Amino acid sequence: MSVLAEFSMSPMDQGESVSKYVARNLEIIADSRVPYRLGPMGTCLEGDWDEVFGVIKQCYERMARDCRRISCSIKLDIRQGHEGRLTSKIAKLEQVLGRELEK
Amino acid sequence: MSVLAEFSMSPMDQGESVSKYVARNLEIIADSRVPYRLGPMGTCLEGDWDEVFGVIKQCYERMARDCRRISCSIKLDIRQGHEGRLTSKIAKLEQVLGRELEK
Amino acid sequence: MSVLAEFSMSPMDQGESVSKYVARNLEIIADSRVPYRLGPMGTCLEGDWDEVFGVIKQCYERMARDCRRISCSIKLDIRQGHEGRLTSKIAKLEQVLGRELEK
Amino acid sequence: MSVLAEFSMSPMDQGESVSKYVARNLEIIADSRVPYRLGPMGTCLEGDWDEVFGVIKQCYERMARDCRRISCSIKLDIRQGHEGRLTSKIAKLEQVLGRELEK
Repeated sequence: MSVLAEFSMSPMDQGESVSKYVARNLEIIADSRVPYRLGPMGTCLEGDWDEVFGVIKQCYERMARDCRRISCSIKLDIRQGHEGRLTSKIAKLEQVLGRELEK
Repeated sequence: MSVLAEFSMSPMDQGESVSKYVARNLEIIADSRVPYRLGPMGTCLEGDWDEVFGVIKQCYERMARDCRRISCSIKLDIRQGHEGRLTSKIAKLEQVLGRELEK
Repeated sequence: MSVLAEFSMSPMDQGESVSKYVARNLEIIADSRVPYRLGPMGTCLEGDWDEVFGVIKQCYERMARDCRRISCSIKLDIRQGHEGRLTSKIAKLEQVLGRELEK
Repeated sequence: MSVLAEFSMSPMDQGESVSKYVARNLEIIADSRVPYRLGPMGTCLEGDWDEVFGVIKQCYERMARDCRRISCSIKLDIRQGHEGRLTSKIAKLEQVLGRELEK
């Protein structure tokens, strides 16, 4: 079972620029053993349910130390009998299309 | 700390009508002790992090017994020093507006 | 074709409490002719594509007058040959379950 | 004003594998003039409001020709006085962290 999760988490009470808080979370993610891929609007993680939500909870606990209001969105695509989908989903689409895409 | 979570979870491999699977999850939610509110596009839960994600994980485990591919989205609004927000957020908005809204 | 859209839109540069800005958007929504339903985490609209996105764009333009950074999420469930789903989706689930739910 | 939009759109009535339908949409996106970046869970577009939603509407109209039920999510980060954020948001985070990240 591959749990593919894209999530983003931001403080709502720290003004317009929130990169300091997002960078701290990326440090937690990069230091976990869970495979990830960073995008302009969020980070994708792949693992089983507990691995993925373990990392997200750590990020939440870190941000909650400094911030009074936090907004977070998580989107999941869970599929049996598949793994390595951080890269294989895009490769499959390029194969269907017969051309390379911006990524 | 109030963790307000709206989530929706659907099988992607069971055809156009998925109400049987959604109804099973609502049974899990209604039987938990976590306050909830149902809407046309998802269910809102309020609790602490572990309560809320405990219920969502139970829903996932039930659906994964029958379905090979599951799509889920979770949106969180987490705020210190507040609770009862399943109803108070809307009441606050009606007060600011000075009129009642469809809900 | 029924386009059911749940959306939420918040400024990111106006501090922890954003109800003033959300209330303005609800006024735009309530004054449009598009059926809506308010929830703790967002507002559901139902109509055709242009009706729904016309309202959301108006909300964006109003908020962009005062705010330098805006976060918005939109979730769509689009289905042919159905309408009235702001209420019928929940009614159908209650019928499958044989019990009433919190809403 | 930079409207950064990540979106994903899938049929719900076409079975577990939906890459044929997603690939068609990517063709529409790649052939538009709107800058984009593909990720495992969605595609990011950057432009003004009408450019971005013009492309998303084209994708919807193409998919609606073959599919009776469509699920779509759109997440927006809109910011005044910025552009080129498909690449600059990640570069900024790497600069804050002082290390490169998986992308």
